[in-house]
Amino acid sequence: MVDPPPLTALIGKDTASIGELLAARVARTPDSPFIRCAGRCWTYAEAWDAARRFAGFLQAHGLAGQRITAFLPKSPEALFSWFGASLSGGVWVALNRAHRGAVLKDLLDRARARLLVTDRDGWQIIGPLLPPEMTQVLFTDEVPDDLAPSVRALHWASVLNAAPAEPVACAPGSVATLLYTSGTTGRSKGVLLPHTMYVRGAGWLVDSYGFRVGDVFHDWMPLSHIGGQLHVTMTAIVAGACLAQVPAFSRRSFWDEVRGNGATAFFGFSSILALLLEAPAGPDDRNHALRVGLIGSMPAEVLTAFERRFGVRLLDTYGMTECEPLTLPVPGTPPGSCGWPSPDFKVAVLDQEDRPLPAGAAGRICMRPRRPFVMMLGYEADPEATVEAWRNLWFHTADRGRFDAEGFLHFIDRMKYAIRRGGENISTSEVERVFLSHPELAACAAVGVPDTVMGEEVKLIAVPRPGSDVHPVDLHAYALTHMAAFMVPRYIELTGALPYTDVGKLKREELTGTGGRVWDARAATGPK
Amino acid sequence: MVDPPPLTALIGKDTASIGELLAARVARTPDSPFIRCAGRCWTYAEAWDAARRFAGFLQAHGLAGQRITAFLPKSPEALFSWFGASLSGGVWVALNRAHRGAVLKDLLDRARARLLVTDRDGWQIIGPLLPPEMTQVLFTDEVPDDLAPSVRALHWASVLNAAPAEPVACAPGSVATLLYTSGTTGRSKGVLLPHTMYVRGAGWLVDSYGFRVGDVFHDWMPLSHIGGQLHVTMTAIVAGACLAQVPAFSRRSFWDEVRGNGATAFFGFSSILALLLEAPAGPDDRNHALRVGLIGSMPAEVLTAFERRFGVRLLDTYGMTECEPLTLPVPGTPPGSCGWPSPDFKVAVLDQEDRPLPAGAAGRICMRPRRPFVMMLGYEADPEATVEAWRNLWFHTADRGRFDAEGFLHFIDRMKYAIRRGGENISTSEVERVFLSHPELAACAAVGVPDTVMGEEVKLIAVPRPGSDVHPVDLHAYALTHMAAFMVPRYIELTGALPYTDVGKLKREELTGTGGRVWDARAATGPK
Repeated sequence: MVDPPPLTALIGKDTASIGELLAARVARTPDSPFIRCAGRCWTYAEAWDAARRFAGFLQAHGLAGQRITAFLPKSPEALFSWFGASLSGGVWVALNRAHRGAVLKDLLDRARARLLVTDRDGWQIIGPLLPPEMTQVLFTDEVPDDLAPSVRALHWASVLNAAPAEPVACAPGSVATLLYTSGTTGRSKGVLLPHTMYVRGAGWLVDSYGFRVGDVFHDWMPLSHIGGQLHVTMTAIVAGACLAQVPAFSRRSFWDEVRGNGATAFFGFSSILALLLEAPAGPDDRNHALRVGLIGSMPAEVLTAFERRFGVRLLDTYGMTECEPLTLPVPGTPPGSCGWPSPDFKVAVLDQEDRPLPAGAAGRICMRPRRPFVMMLGYEADPEATVEAWRNLWFHTADRGRFDAEGFLHFIDRMKYAIRRGGENISTSEVERVFLSHPELAACAAVGVPDTVMGEEVKLIAVPRPGSDVHPVDLHAYALTHMAAFMVPRYIELTGALPYTDVGKLKREELTGTGGRVWDARAATGPK
Repeated sequence: MVDPPPLTALIGKDTASIGELLAARVARTPDSPFIRCAGRCWTYAEAWDAARRFAGFLQAHGLAGQRITAFLPKSPEALFSWFGASLSGGVWVALNRAHRGAVLKDLLDRARARLLVTDRDGWQIIGPLLPPEMTQVLFTDEVPDDLAPSVRALHWASVLNAAPAEPVACAPGSVATLLYTSGTTGRSKGVLLPHTMYVRGAGWLVDSYGFRVGDVFHDWMPLSHIGGQLHVTMTAIVAGACLAQVPAFSRRSFWDEVRGNGATAFFGFSSILALLLEAPAGPDDRNHALRVGLIGSMPAEVLTAFERRFGVRLLDTYGMTECEPLTLPVPGTPPGSCGWPSPDFKVAVLDQEDRPLPAGAAGRICMRPRRPFVMMLGYEADPEATVEAWRNLWFHTADRGRFDAEGFLHFIDRMKYAIRRGGENISTSEVERVFLSHPELAACAAVGVPDTVMGEEVKLIAVPRPGSDVHPVDLHAYALTHMAAFMVPRYIELTGALPYTDVGKLKREELTGTGGRVWDARAATGPK
């Protein structure tokens, strides 16, 4: 068995709880900056003190070892509530701050926590949804004065004034967080994640990306996302790096924030890169300290364009809430590949009957852990979904991919986004890649739209570059000479921008209409 | 990937449905005897015809592809109902004929079948338990005349007179049977088993044991047990062998039946061998054609004694309802080992945190399938139990074992039967093995009994050889010189016979009393 060298050098063993990891880091670099946010700064020692006080606060209120729900913006307080819950042996549940109404209430109810941590703004949203058993609410800023008498309001001062608790020993295989999947289609699943996945996963990322003391993460990722929790926060702790927190990703202020914070690293997705590439090139494009981007899957074209323009090395990693990171960049990883399987996982590409496919063939990406507790323990209150995902004792991702002859994994697309047209499986990402090479397009998305004859037809939604007057007819003609006939989109829609989730992932479901301003090749050219 | 040679030679591919397997066998040896029972005989062609008529009967009654419950004695009709259900694409549920009352009703309800196949005797037991949705009952003998009007009684003649159906294509990964675990402790689990497990599992057994056309199985195993279904029936089909059915195992008539049927092979457990060894040796001990015993785990002492006395080669295989066979005998397997892992499985011995243990160390036997659908699909209506058994994507058996340096697996005992005495884990099988070497004991069992001070104390239940007047004091003294002090039983009970299940497995739960005739070393010698 292989262990991540930076991690074992830090903790002196092959795994640890989040609390043990933090303690080891604090012992090593107590005075290094850990969190910077809105002009304030916490060293590792100061954050450790805050986390221990949070654990002490939980003890004092009979909440040690329990579930703690956070509905917070990106903030140091959010991190202290997580670390404090962990130090007390409890489970942290971060709710996506973008949620509202029935969806938010469902996630809140399912968290089954007695304590909610939020702020005044958050309370306006979540307050009306509080389940009756959640009787205590901790506010990180001011306590509102319109609270119902059944709610016990607690002020952040009671955290700051609490006696720091001694960390509780906690098995590396025990539950660290309940984390909801994004649920872009269907109900979010509650994923039970063990300490070991965070600690070893971060160890491998530090090993592969070379993060170190002195690195500063441009930290825009929500803490309700595995990227914010593991790829950024835990990775920074293993490396001894600093988190420069910003409220959210902003294409407009990204570079100013990066320069202002002296950021050397960032986490992102392909769509984030595409958004940043849409801005006109300028003389400041390389005026920054960004050294490396930790990217979850990107096409070779986007990688090359971004690296060339901004001078930032981009390295691909692949995974999902249930298991991160599944692959790691290694020297020689070709553009468009997400690297080799992490030593903690056996990764395979399987066919519909769970039989392994040879190199080059596309199928479902599946995996088995090589060691215990490096992946989810299961979907909470949904053992049926867990068993389904674990068929034949493989974890079945939702993604299609292929291995090349050198053993590099190539992510193709989500299984459910593959377009099935007249018996052909069409990869949305392959269609998009062709159109991204068209000089007049800034971004695009391919989706399947229902069709009574073909099952599905291909639709392209394209964002022309500023000043372009490209017409769907031009794009259709381009497609006819650049891709197989069965892949050529029948429908083409031009738009000013594509719709994204709060972490910059494309909302494909919103793009499947064919009415109104959508150009139809059949109507334009007549049936063949 | 490796495939079982006799199977692929027969079916021309690496797996098949049960129906396809049977068809391939019938095409090869249509006129070989397949089933002998109570003076009647069916060739493979005749059994194929009967199975196709059963499938035709199901079609005619709107039951094709459905679940069929059988509550039958060992019989050709039971087999035809299984094969017929399979040929129609349905699922066969065999209920243990030994069950009664509430347990039987529970299993019957959970089977969720609309058709019950039974006989007059069975109807007396199961008739009063019929759930309302089970409206059709097929009788293999006479139809009782006291049926409620809500029950539609069908006679076996309607099977014999049905037009033979064409077999329905059926994916090798689809459900073939619902099979209940023995449930000696707690409620039986309903195990959903795919066709592939039966077909490939039997292929490996034929490959390892060398079964062939002309072999005759002494077939006493209930068809409600995986041994009866897979190790005997399916194995016979792959080999082209004959099943000589007898109603049940009988220590008294075993050898007469074996001689009468010209049996060359049998399936059994260690306890069966021990029962046969209890009989006094005689001149007829080697007057039979038995060539090989297919044994599910046996101590070296029993193996050696049986082989030496009866001249039958015994080969060990290990598995459980959820996955069979996990190990296979290979040349050089040492006595007391159950062989090497089947090529279809990766087998590991893991510690409590699912970390692999080195050769020599005892831990839980766990496995992962190397190919799809060679094990259960899950526990029906119990996904929680499935997820628990599949933690870290290993299937966790209930058994303790160890690998030796040559890679042979040694079964030690059931995890739950290990006795935990004052911090020491005591293997019941190791205690039993020592006492089995005592010249005056015919059989014995070690169990843990609750103790307020030690957690558990060791109790031995021993069956003296006929004519022996051995006293517990003698056995205690023997133990003191033959085993570690912490293993020496405090309680010893002498008895005439041990309690066994219908397939000859020891009922340990019935042996844990310490009152009445039980000798207590503490009372006899005073506290130390």
